[in-house]
Amino acid sequence: MNAPSKKDRLTLAVDAMGGDAAPAMVIEGLDLAMEKLPNVRFQVFGDEAQVQPLIDRYPRVQTATTLTHTADRIPNEMKPSAALRQGRKSSMALAINAVKAGEADGIVSAGNTGALMALAMFGLRMLPGISRPGIASFFPTMRGETVMLDLGANVDCDAENLVQFAVMGEVFARQVLGHEKPSVGILNVGAEDQKGNSAVKAAFEILSRSELPIDFYGFVEGDDIGRGTVDVVVTDGFTGNIALKTAEGTARLFGHLLKEALMGSTGGRLGALLARPALKEFKKRVDPRRYNGAMFLGLNGICVKSHGGTDAVGFAHAVEVAVELILDRLNDEIHADYSRLLDSGALAGLKEAASG
Amino acid sequence: MNAPSKKDRLTLAVDAMGGDAAPAMVIEGLDLAMEKLPNVRFQVFGDEAQVQPLIDRYPRVQTATTLTHTADRIPNEMKPSAALRQGRKSSMALAINAVKAGEADGIVSAGNTGALMALAMFGLRMLPGISRPGIASFFPTMRGETVMLDLGANVDCDAENLVQFAVMGEVFARQVLGHEKPSVGILNVGAEDQKGNSAVKAAFEILSRSELPIDFYGFVEGDDIGRGTVDVVVTDGFTGNIALKTAEGTARLFGHLLKEALMGSTGGRLGALLARPALKEFKKRVDPRRYNGAMFLGLNGICVKSHGGTDAVGFAHAVEVAVELILDRLNDEIHADYSRLLDSGALAGLKEAASG
Repeated sequence: MNAPSKKDRLTLAVDAMGGDAAPAMVIEGLDLAMEKLPNVRFQVFGDEAQVQPLIDRYPRVQTATTLTHTADRIPNEMKPSAALRQGRKSSMALAINAVKAGEADGIVSAGNTGALMALAMFGLRMLPGISRPGIASFFPTMRGETVMLDLGANVDCDAENLVQFAVMGEVFARQVLGHEKPSVGILNVGAEDQKGNSAVKAAFEILSRSELPIDFYGFVEGDDIGRGTVDVVVTDGFTGNIALKTAEGTARLFGHLLKEALMGSTGGRLGALLARPALKEFKKRVDPRRYNGAMFLGLNGICVKSHGGTDAVGFAHAVEVAVELILDRLNDEIHADYSRLLDSGALAGLKEAASG
Repeated sequence: MNAPSKKDRLTLAVDAMGGDAAPAMVIEGLDLAMEKLPNVRFQVFGDEAQVQPLIDRYPRVQTATTLTHTADRIPNEMKPSAALRQGRKSSMALAINAVKAGEADGIVSAGNTGALMALAMFGLRMLPGISRPGIASFFPTMRGETVMLDLGANVDCDAENLVQFAVMGEVFARQVLGHEKPSVGILNVGAEDQKGNSAVKAAFEILSRSELPIDFYGFVEGDDIGRGTVDVVVTDGFTGNIALKTAEGTARLFGHLLKEALMGSTGGRLGALLARPALKEFKKRVDPRRYNGAMFLGLNGICVKSHGGTDAVGFAHAVEVAVELILDRLNDEIHADYSRLLDSGALAGLKEAASG
């Protein structure tokens, strides 16, 4: 049998063993995803004794799936370096290999982020010209959706990394979110151009050059994320990860305080009852599971990381995100755009500016 | 006449010209603050032609205030270095001088943050042993209130700075928030101790030493801020500023989406009407003006920065914060605690660890 043709039918490699509630939540998530994506096929990697009975529960998953057994899995606390040495036969590594071998079009895992990044970098390599991958995700804003990166792949970033994130994020916002000419901002502690650390200042200089085909807005601040001031927010992985989790935590706190206030009085309880459909709609809109599925951009292959603590609904969403990235040929576009930038000489002097 | 005795009556130096809606919002804020603090006195600095008519509008402010005229003020966009050179006769600098001269017990300004920090460092100097000031503020959490610092004074921080922030934040949480044995966490991209940049890792090592009289929790993540996992969140000024503003922006977005959902249906509108007192209570609880007033910790003098965009209610809150810090003798406590730490040798090797 030949590997499934990319043109006909799309195949996703799935790490069944990653995530707090794996493998049950993973297989149930595949079933949910198939409601919207009846034609997708899955290559699932994991412990047969645990996974096969789960697959057997969902007839449509059963017909769409081939399971490859492996007893190995990457623990949550394993360091990336250890995963590279000891994790070659893990469900995660085998799933990545399937993409590398052209047997699958992309991978989804809810496992250890650092290990997934390391194994994917090793297995899939980077897109030409991109030095480091960025983790991207999108956020609800007052104006729609904004993509932000890096969300944690790179604790230390220089200006060159930030510029590459800007290019990748811009393509993402155009191809996947459908923004015609996405605006790009760099996250900083002030909008004035004399503020910030040396990396953001140098990236600002490079992106301000008029010959770059990017709608560069300049610096944005933390509150601009929720405001939707720009379509793409560029930041280093340390700051981005903390901003992402601070936003999640604030949303949770807000929901908690709202509930407390409503349940504390008869009027509040009655009002909440009457407004139940509206409150449900609201809850759905801010449901973090809707935004589950972080994309690893810059790799020579589609790799989507689901939140480790998610449930089947969230995992299904991560599967949908992966399929969308594949259909939108995201990596081809990033590659084409970045090559054009390099060829144009618009990025010349980037290294000097970055180290200056 | 002698300077007002610190024992009898507390005097606050006030920069009347800082803030978007200054000086009107400042003087109205003083009047509001006097509702709770009838005995406080003000030394106000600003343009007499603008400020005196405002003071004359509020009888109790009028009796409690002496106005010193200056036509100079620090513009919002002025760099700190320029403020040091050109701003010596500004309302902000004169207010700081009043504290330095012992005529006032602390200063409140809603002006340019960088300039205020530079002028205060120059005018008031640092507490012995503290190398850099930290901007601190408190946040609502699921468990009460948490203090976080630095919120933007230091874009680049090393481990030594972070340890000093931990000491200052711990004293603050004990003295001002009334936590008996405050727990302290360092903001990071993961709870595991191998994650993060070199500064947070080295600070973790120092604070983990058992002989330090600090209840050190370890690393916390962005969502721990809203959860209230620790009483003190320590971070560098770049990350802290972005986390603060991301939280503000998320709260605003959440409120916006909630309103949109409720107003979009008859049931929602009716429910909101019934629940109005509860929703009002909720709104009050998350009102950012309640949390206005960032403290500059580590200076040899009390200095509170009000948000530049605040109104009289927010400015009044900043005044209350300043009075509380003075009454709690915050700086004496920080000084005593930090000296004890230095003397104990518990911080020995800090420099080496910080640079390692």
